[in-house]
Amino acid sequence: MADRDYVIGFDADDTLWHNETIFENVHVRFRALLAQYHDGATVDRMQFAAEMRNLELYGYGVKGFTLSAIETAIELTAGKISAEEIRQLLELGREMLAHPVELLDGVAETLTALAPMHRLLLITKGDLRDQERKLGKSGLAERFRNVEIVSEKDTRAYEGIFRRHGITPENFLMVGNSLKSDIVPVLALGGSGAHVPYHITWAYEQVDNVPAAEGRFFRLNTIRELPAVVAAWTRVTG
Amino acid sequence: MADRDYVIGFDADDTLWHNETIFENVHVRFRALLAQYHDGATVDRMQFAAEMRNLELYGYGVKGFTLSAIETAIELTAGKISAEEIRQLLELGREMLAHPVELLDGVAETLTALAPMHRLLLITKGDLRDQERKLGKSGLAERFRNVEIVSEKDTRAYEGIFRRHGITPENFLMVGNSLKSDIVPVLALGGSGAHVPYHITWAYEQVDNVPAAEGRFFRLNTIRELPAVVAAWTRVTG
Repeated sequence: MADRDYVIGFDADDTLWHNETIFENVHVRFRALLAQYHDGATVDRMQFAAEMRNLELYGYGVKGFTLSAIETAIELTAGKISAEEIRQLLELGREMLAHPVELLDGVAETLTALAPMHRLLLITKGDLRDQERKLGKSGLAERFRNVEIVSEKDTRAYEGIFRRHGITPENFLMVGNSLKSDIVPVLALGGSGAHVPYHITWAYEQVDNVPAAEGRFFRLNTIRELPAVVAAWTRVTG
Repeated sequence: MADRDYVIGFDADDTLWHNETIFENVHVRFRALLAQYHDGATVDRMQFAAEMRNLELYGYGVKGFTLSAIETAIELTAGKISAEEIRQLLELGREMLAHPVELLDGVAETLTALAPMHRLLLITKGDLRDQERKLGKSGLAERFRNVEIVSEKDTRAYEGIFRRHGITPENFLMVGNSLKSDIVPVLALGGSGAHVPYHITWAYEQVDNVPAAEGRFFRLNTIRELPAVVAAWTRVTG
């Protein structure tokens, strides 16, 4: 059983390092910029609507977020926003991209404990260069055998990853903060999932349905619980 | 010799389908938008400078181009550009992303001829979702065994691709329109390169030095010459 090739996939944003807090901070400043025109709830709602409208063309990540924010600002001010204020939005976007990477509590120790025992994979979505830069800054790159930056995390994407890396779903555990992107599609393919919630969830990633997968779905309070969960999981499936 | 596992890598933009012509068309409209403020040469120069300044943060692709165009427009008009004009720039960016994919002459036939004989790989840089969408629209996806969308095409990126796909550089031929991104790094690693020029080259991709690589570097006038070049190449290296 120790010979079985277990693979553990890790989401990155809000699983290994803070991300939604950075976006949240930007939302606060975006609301302040438009405060003379609209209340915060309207700004949030229109920004989210723009992101959803543009998702197919822009994909995930800071660059698309920034373009959608500029669009929203023009829309919500009926064109009265100044070029200087739009320049500030561009600057906000660049600040997000240049933001330091802050690891979540327990991440470094957990990866260090698991890396010698199992194949670790990083599986993340967003802007290619931004995700690579964050991984570089994180100091975690050497813990991962492979890195997959994908445009969407659905069953099709995970099937591709399984094929490219010779992974049997039964031997695969995905760890992440998003039920929608990290857990539901992996369970659907016969893999296992460990959900580690982050204190903020982007509206788009929220799901109501809790997947039913006896013995293949684990809820963790913190990533520090992962080594014990992995030990139990490999005993059951082994 | 027929047993050797030859791999042929293909660049995408301006090698398989038109891309720089779409950007060029957008540059024309961008110059027109700013014509009352500056001459076309200044607009081009400032836009290129913004793209270079932002390359490290934005990477390649249409989203970064659009953000740099908005920045340039604000800069060149000293903030006098209107929100409506910036909205037009956002629209230009979206048009580029939604643009139909037009294959270059001879591409479909050439890939159809080569795909049964050799492993074909697509290796491209740019926005993840945009490149995937273009490949999907191209109708060429099934010709390729694997697709690599990378944030940069330098020796480090090609080394990673060789490692991930078990490629021996001696058995690898890269086909593309950019000496800088498709040919020079591959030759440096001991691979072979086939240069198929496109009628426009983005300033960033221009290089002066012609690589010296006896028997490993081929200049083609059109991709239609590729099957004959590949036949000659496999005879020499086999």
